[in-house]
Amino acid sequence: MLPFIRSDLAQLTTYKADPEGSERPPTQGRVDRLDTNECPYDLPPDLKRSLSDLYQTQIEANRYPNGDHRALKQAIAAYASEALAGDLDAQWISVGNGSDELIRSVLMATCLGGEGSVLVAQPTFSMYAILAKTLGIPVVSVNRTPSFAIDLAAAQQALTAPHHPPIRVVFVVHPNSPTANPLTSSEVEWLESLPEEVLVVVDEAYFEFSQQTLIAQVLQRPNWMILRTFSKAFRLAAHRVGYGVAHPEIITTLEKLRLPYNLTALSLAAAELAMDHRHRLLEAIPGLLTERDNLLMQIKSLPHLKVWPSAANFIYAQAQTLAQSEQIHQAMQQQGTSIRFTGGGLRITVGSPPENQRTWERLRQLMPSC
Amino acid sequence: MLPFIRSDLAQLTTYKADPEGSERPPTQGRVDRLDTNECPYDLPPDLKRSLSDLYQTQIEANRYPNGDHRALKQAIAAYASEALAGDLDAQWISVGNGSDELIRSVLMATCLGGEGSVLVAQPTFSMYAILAKTLGIPVVSVNRTPSFAIDLAAAQQALTAPHHPPIRVVFVVHPNSPTANPLTSSEVEWLESLPEEVLVVVDEAYFEFSQQTLIAQVLQRPNWMILRTFSKAFRLAAHRVGYGVAHPEIITTLEKLRLPYNLTALSLAAAELAMDHRHRLLEAIPGLLTERDNLLMQIKSLPHLKVWPSAANFIYAQAQTLAQSEQIHQAMQQQGTSIRFTGGGLRITVGSPPENQRTWERLRQLMPSC
Repeated sequence: MLPFIRSDLAQLTTYKADPEGSERPPTQGRVDRLDTNECPYDLPPDLKRSLSDLYQTQIEANRYPNGDHRALKQAIAAYASEALAGDLDAQWISVGNGSDELIRSVLMATCLGGEGSVLVAQPTFSMYAILAKTLGIPVVSVNRTPSFAIDLAAAQQALTAPHHPPIRVVFVVHPNSPTANPLTSSEVEWLESLPEEVLVVVDEAYFEFSQQTLIAQVLQRPNWMILRTFSKAFRLAAHRVGYGVAHPEIITTLEKLRLPYNLTALSLAAAELAMDHRHRLLEAIPGLLTERDNLLMQIKSLPHLKVWPSAANFIYAQAQTLAQSEQIHQAMQQQGTSIRFTGGGLRITVGSPPENQRTWERLRQLMPSC
Repeated sequence: MLPFIRSDLAQLTTYKADPEGSERPPTQGRVDRLDTNECPYDLPPDLKRSLSDLYQTQIEANRYPNGDHRALKQAIAAYASEALAGDLDAQWISVGNGSDELIRSVLMATCLGGEGSVLVAQPTFSMYAILAKTLGIPVVSVNRTPSFAIDLAAAQQALTAPHHPPIRVVFVVHPNSPTANPLTSSEVEWLESLPEEVLVVVDEAYFEFSQQTLIAQVLQRPNWMILRTFSKAFRLAAHRVGYGVAHPEIITTLEKLRLPYNLTALSLAAAELAMDHRHRLLEAIPGLLTERDNLLMQIKSLPHLKVWPSAANFIYAQAQTLAQSEQIHQAMQQQGTSIRFTGGGLRITVGSPPENQRTWERLRQLMPSC
């Protein structure tokens, strides 16, 4: 270990977001990429061409991008306000290099220097704990019930136990990844009961699929924050754009912490275009939900695979043992369907109809109805 | 102040990388943008079209970008090796969302949790201190001599004084910004003398203009790191790509700390293209250096403005008082030339010939030779 490297980093492993990495053939379509919960569809060709033309004629590659994100923030505020009585404006919005950057900024804003720990309920999105550890921030984990609701008694106990440092942030995904369940009313009530010195971060990465949002809370509670992304329903994973919605005082702090030019010029333009054409882009959602429900019914008919309801664009399933789940993951990979083995089970993204058909056929062959 | 926000963040102000922000007319060319040391030229039209076509036909906007950067790292390693006897490979390279992200990762890797402070010699690139403060890391500043060399006696004293926490990183820019001077042999000798528990970060953002590099040091010394960027000579500021070259053990640590998908798919492609066509892109350098030397001679002829030699694509000048420098900055802005007022003086980017002509005419009018 080099002597200038932080002593606690030796144990940390590199996050493999995409274990297949560059082995994935990017355009040949030979592998069904159902492991990262992307939307299966690229932008419509005319919008893709608009962005391509804009890049060629309007964007100066040699110039730094706009660093204040004003136009995009205004568009996001208008979109986020659709679910609200009260209007939001740009002051309530911060935009990040994916939600990842916002999660890191939240952690830096609250817990650094021994000032706080974070609470998560496992299994959940792994980046909260990974990013916390890169910053030396302790992670307190509690379990979930058999239906994947947070064990609230354990969570409450963790919150009031004499942790050093105290819990300053609770991260939840709504609906949760990998288990696809939205927050229950009991969970929301518990989150509402948290004291004002605890920041509640509700990650609504899959909001456009679930149509369930707690965004109204941010108007009432200065200790709530909503995270959203352009990487799922808005089909811009390649562009790395996420956003947070919260009280302007939180936003001001996050703006101090972000890298000054965190988004590329084209990514800013792409996100603005997605907002302008959001109704068209979201037209794909009902079809994906129908596909999801069909695939879910099919998987349910397999005797040795347990599957749960989904409010998102993916399905969570478990074989009878951990080893069997892992075997299915590997066998599916060999047959050309990449799914994720995580949280002790299988997370299967809903893809295009032919992809879902192959998912079903391959699963059925692997799990004969004996 | 919200009770979950770190107590030391209240004093921190938001970095205004681009004070003009979105007021800058992006393509109308009415303002000469000579305040951020960009190359004045966009990519050649055929390369721009290649990228535009590639975006439209090869990049799936809905898919996460490649997260391992393998192809780009290999291309960078080949480029960086040109100055070296020994070959570098991809293991010696980490790629960031601009150098900014790499600076943050270096700070996180070394100093977090009270393990270290950083040393800088003022004036220098402001992001080292800004990013350190966002992480709660102490910054030790020393001054420079009248020719802007580091006050080495003060630096040595700072290093050996009983600082709490000890200095773990020294950041230098080579050539320095805003003062445009390369490291002297005395400065290099001092950096070489630093103990192995201090990381030496040499930021060669302007290497393609100075043609001076200390990259051979990384092969000899596991406590040295070189930073470079695609934002200056390679004309890709809009795309946010920087890189670091260092011992593979440092690189492994930085890779653990970066965001998994830190670069967009198009930015990866743009940087690869810039490497493939680097000789063409770098053909603009000699003309810019001639322009720089002409402008420098012209400014030198003004009696009330002091100007220093430059090894970069910008010129540093000072009026007789701080107030006069600030007045010139504002008057130039009003006349349509944006320059930077920083470090007590004026940092003037070398632009295109017509821009430089206007810079000269405007400065001459503001500083009559009386």
